[in-house]
Amino acid sequence: MLQSEINRLKLEVQTLQGESGNQPIYIGQYLIERLKQLGVTTMFGVPGDFNLGFLDLVEDDPVLDWAGNCNELNAAYAADGYARVKEHSLGVLLTTFGVGELSAVNGIAGAFSEMVPVLHIAGVPSTHQQKAKPMLHHTLGDGRYNAYELAAEQFACATANLVTVETAASEIDRVLTECISQARPVYLTLPTDIAYQKISSERLKVPLSALPLPNDPEVEAFVVDEISKLVEAAKGDVVILVDACCVRHDAREETLELINATGFPVYAAPMGKTAVSEDHERYGGLYVGSISRPEIKEKVESAKLIISIGGLKSDFNSGNFTYSIPRANTVELHSSWTMVQYADFPRIGMKELIPKLAKSLAHWKPTALQISVPKFSAIVPQDNEPAITHSYFWPRMSQFFKPKDVIVAETGTSSFGILDVPLPAESILVTQILWGSIGYTTGATLGAALAARDRQLGRTILFIGDGSIQLTVQELCTIMRKDLKPIIFLLNNTGYTIERYLHGKTRKYNDIVNWKWTSLLSVLGDEDGTKSQSYTVNDRTELSNLLDTPEFARADKCQLVEVMMPMHDAPRALEVQAELSGKTNKYTS
Amino acid sequence: MLQSEINRLKLEVQTLQGESGNQPIYIGQYLIERLKQLGVTTMFGVPGDFNLGFLDLVEDDPVLDWAGNCNELNAAYAADGYARVKEHSLGVLLTTFGVGELSAVNGIAGAFSEMVPVLHIAGVPSTHQQKAKPMLHHTLGDGRYNAYELAAEQFACATANLVTVETAASEIDRVLTECISQARPVYLTLPTDIAYQKISSERLKVPLSALPLPNDPEVEAFVVDEISKLVEAAKGDVVILVDACCVRHDAREETLELINATGFPVYAAPMGKTAVSEDHERYGGLYVGSISRPEIKEKVESAKLIISIGGLKSDFNSGNFTYSIPRANTVELHSSWTMVQYADFPRIGMKELIPKLAKSLAHWKPTALQISVPKFSAIVPQDNEPAITHSYFWPRMSQFFKPKDVIVAETGTSSFGILDVPLPAESILVTQILWGSIGYTTGATLGAALAARDRQLGRTILFIGDGSIQLTVQELCTIMRKDLKPIIFLLNNTGYTIERYLHGKTRKYNDIVNWKWTSLLSVLGDEDGTKSQSYTVNDRTELSNLLDTPEFARADKCQLVEVMMPMHDAPRALEVQAELSGKTNKYTS
Repeated sequence: MLQSEINRLKLEVQTLQGESGNQPIYIGQYLIERLKQLGVTTMFGVPGDFNLGFLDLVEDDPVLDWAGNCNELNAAYAADGYARVKEHSLGVLLTTFGVGELSAVNGIAGAFSEMVPVLHIAGVPSTHQQKAKPMLHHTLGDGRYNAYELAAEQFACATANLVTVETAASEIDRVLTECISQARPVYLTLPTDIAYQKISSERLKVPLSALPLPNDPEVEAFVVDEISKLVEAAKGDVVILVDACCVRHDAREETLELINATGFPVYAAPMGKTAVSEDHERYGGLYVGSISRPEIKEKVESAKLIISIGGLKSDFNSGNFTYSIPRANTVELHSSWTMVQYADFPRIGMKELIPKLAKSLAHWKPTALQISVPKFSAIVPQDNEPAITHSYFWPRMSQFFKPKDVIVAETGTSSFGILDVPLPAESILVTQILWGSIGYTTGATLGAALAARDRQLGRTILFIGDGSIQLTVQELCTIMRKDLKPIIFLLNNTGYTIERYLHGKTRKYNDIVNWKWTSLLSVLGDEDGTKSQSYTVNDRTELSNLLDTPEFARADKCQLVEVMMPMHDAPRALEVQAELSGKTNKYTS
Repeated sequence: MLQSEINRLKLEVQTLQGESGNQPIYIGQYLIERLKQLGVTTMFGVPGDFNLGFLDLVEDDPVLDWAGNCNELNAAYAADGYARVKEHSLGVLLTTFGVGELSAVNGIAGAFSEMVPVLHIAGVPSTHQQKAKPMLHHTLGDGRYNAYELAAEQFACATANLVTVETAASEIDRVLTECISQARPVYLTLPTDIAYQKISSERLKVPLSALPLPNDPEVEAFVVDEISKLVEAAKGDVVILVDACCVRHDAREETLELINATGFPVYAAPMGKTAVSEDHERYGGLYVGSISRPEIKEKVESAKLIISIGGLKSDFNSGNFTYSIPRANTVELHSSWTMVQYADFPRIGMKELIPKLAKSLAHWKPTALQISVPKFSAIVPQDNEPAITHSYFWPRMSQFFKPKDVIVAETGTSSFGILDVPLPAESILVTQILWGSIGYTTGATLGAALAARDRQLGRTILFIGDGSIQLTVQELCTIMRKDLKPIIFLLNNTGYTIERYLHGKTRKYNDIVNWKWTSLLSVLGDEDGTKSQSYTVNDRTELSNLLDTPEFARADKCQLVEVMMPMHDAPRALEVQAELSGKTNKYTS
């Protein structure tokens, strides 16, 4: 204990020296300082012998907290969830050579796919061992030391191996800059003999930043003008459609400014849900191609011009590619390019462009406000059906949510069910509509709740199915370990319901084993019963009464609610989407 | 139910037709038939929408059983454990595009490293979608459809994409042949529109085989002669050292024949433990370089000639590369090459060579039998210490084992502790000494126990630490789902003990959360309490009494024993190895 206190003090001195001037700093500490500058407060991962030395620095750091995950895939999911909710920062994952890093691949690939900035640090053998290539544990036995990096490259927008002391700082800075600029994962290897090499801390004086290259003013002005002319031709009958990259590439403020300046009606694609507060008076709900609510479909598809912000037209995000909007009526704004009808304008990014548009189009407001926007609401059914059907559950949950809640919805009935109900002001929705890896949300909830605590947001609320939670259940342990207090709604509908709707409705392979769901928290870390509470609700009355209980709603301990739901029931959106997808996956002869 | 009965009958008809002649067969069914021909009885994996159609065929097959794993990494571990214990067959894993297959990478890489034959089938989008490359769920969003295969190639000895009906059968045959011949994983993609295409079943008449190319008789005779001359020069003072590939490349029978014919003393490297029955009269125990028992070290290093069979000199397998045997005194036999002192003989494989050696060296038996072999035994300490130390635990367990038991030891104190005690005749040891991925053994136990049941072996007994089981605990569910009855010894020593010994002895990051270990089986699937039994043993008396209880030893239900052990205690072998490894991973400045 004295020794760790000495270590901690040594580090503080060194950090202060580092901040004050040219004092040398461990490379490992340099990396930590950069992460702290970028707002990182928690590092996720699992110890392994090639990362333990670096992990000492993490544990001793006065600011950075070590999550201590149960496994690396869940840790990657957590880093992803953290980055999404934290915003303007990044998630960080630390694993060990081979066995650790390869366990995380799916989590990193999901972050890549959904544009989430995550730094993956793999602790690797020393530079000497990398040259000599001995048959160490965690190697492939055939002498290859580069296989894991070759795999990682597929799912990273930049990679670096810190094998040279002289370039370590610049390499760290390079990958971090790529990470936050492109909002995609990056991969960094840290050899055991590098973490404690000393380098100058001079570079730390200049913070890293994600600002993209500025738009060429001449081209930008041209684009603004072209768009203005289209709005003119449309006589102001314009709809704004917010989508994934509006959030992922940090254009929400600018977008809100545009909406407030112009008054154009705004709708969201599923991946853009909560990009704009769903209680905004000009917000009309979700557009999902042919599976949209009829009134929304009509409004969007009859508009003369659509300004799409951060579009990402994946199958589940677009009603299976059933957008019925001609390109001639479309303007697409993206982080690093713009499309106006058929014309492509590379290197014109939306973050700079949108404020110019807001200024240029503000005079349309009186006209725009004439266009009515459907009220996006959800009605709780009042029939006598006692069973908790999706048609009841989601609207009822919608009444339970509060502003600034962080809502996490697992791929399955949850990620579809949550779409059809409005979420409150300033809430954040976390879901993986493009990547769609079941089990993601247990780890993501850990990261999301940590970020929510950092930002003093509201409650973290998870919706996950019985099938999905089985993949990643152990992370409930880490959630309680960090004294987090999410409310977990575990939908017990006896199996992989989303699969049943895609194919194999009554197949045994879509059945799962029934666990004692309400004992999970107790067994996986709540030894004395003080950290958590679990419930089962069997019908609508029990659910509603629980939601109305102040102690429950207060969320001052970790809570799990087993929600008994009928096996063959799904949200409308899932039923329709599954039918469309089923036609595309032609299976049977 | 009637429909699935109809499906099943249709398949039976088709299979019989397939067997009887040229009747067309679904490509998916062709694959299944090949797997059954190769002895596969269980397929591991998780359903996902790109594999459900094929999964129908699996579920309907009268022979093949679907494991229904909780997640893909555990499923890959299970396929690996199954292949090791099943022998002369392979493990099979079925996952879905992107999210499923990438979750399994670490399990497949481990099988690659440790030479375990596993077929990884990834259900992928249709051939049409692969050409058009729409932004489907489970894609990376940037149009790449080949990224997962590029990653998979790093850890497969062969890959195939079944995109063409005409070559599907030959491609399936090609990768399966590579798999069983090289004893390494292979990767196969199965598009949704291919599984139900019909092809001829003609090829099924010729079974696949793993026989390597025959040794060139002239070269082989030369090699036999060279080795005989070395034995002559050594005056018969020869030691046989069995290692990993003796098992992995199916040379155990030949090796036993050699030992019985020549009488040469035989020792095992850790990865060769149980390659030869540890009760063989000429077997002397484990050689692990400088960390061997002194009497074994002396015997092996003073022998005039070592014949190493299937050597794989990884760090933990060789006492951190401390073999003290000059090359001039060494003959190395491998699956596809031989080394005699400094001379390399490519394409001379041991499976054919060893019987020739046995014949040629048999006359040395009377001489060899003069050489004494230490009795490999383990003494149970008789002191008054009540705590269950490793020095007590492993010898005491050694008394509990029975012939044909399948013993699974997790990376950590278990994989080191098990080395120092003799295992009974015809037992099989499953451990991952080269790859060393903690958590592997929960899934591996599932596969091992299924294979043990197929082969009517003894009990399956798992040793796993509290830290390790947290990574993969959910697979306990599947173990019970399949009515398997392993005995699981869960070593509760408060944290990642192997890490503590490598670095960070008192570091918080090596602590874990204490779970209610003896409630796990109940919560994760034993709803009515009839499938399992759990115990805690706090001291030597409690442990010994439990081991002596017939109902317990009978292993007729799934059992978990929480073994309370001191935090800072480890098997001798781990302490020594960790110290050596620690010097190689230079961390601190």
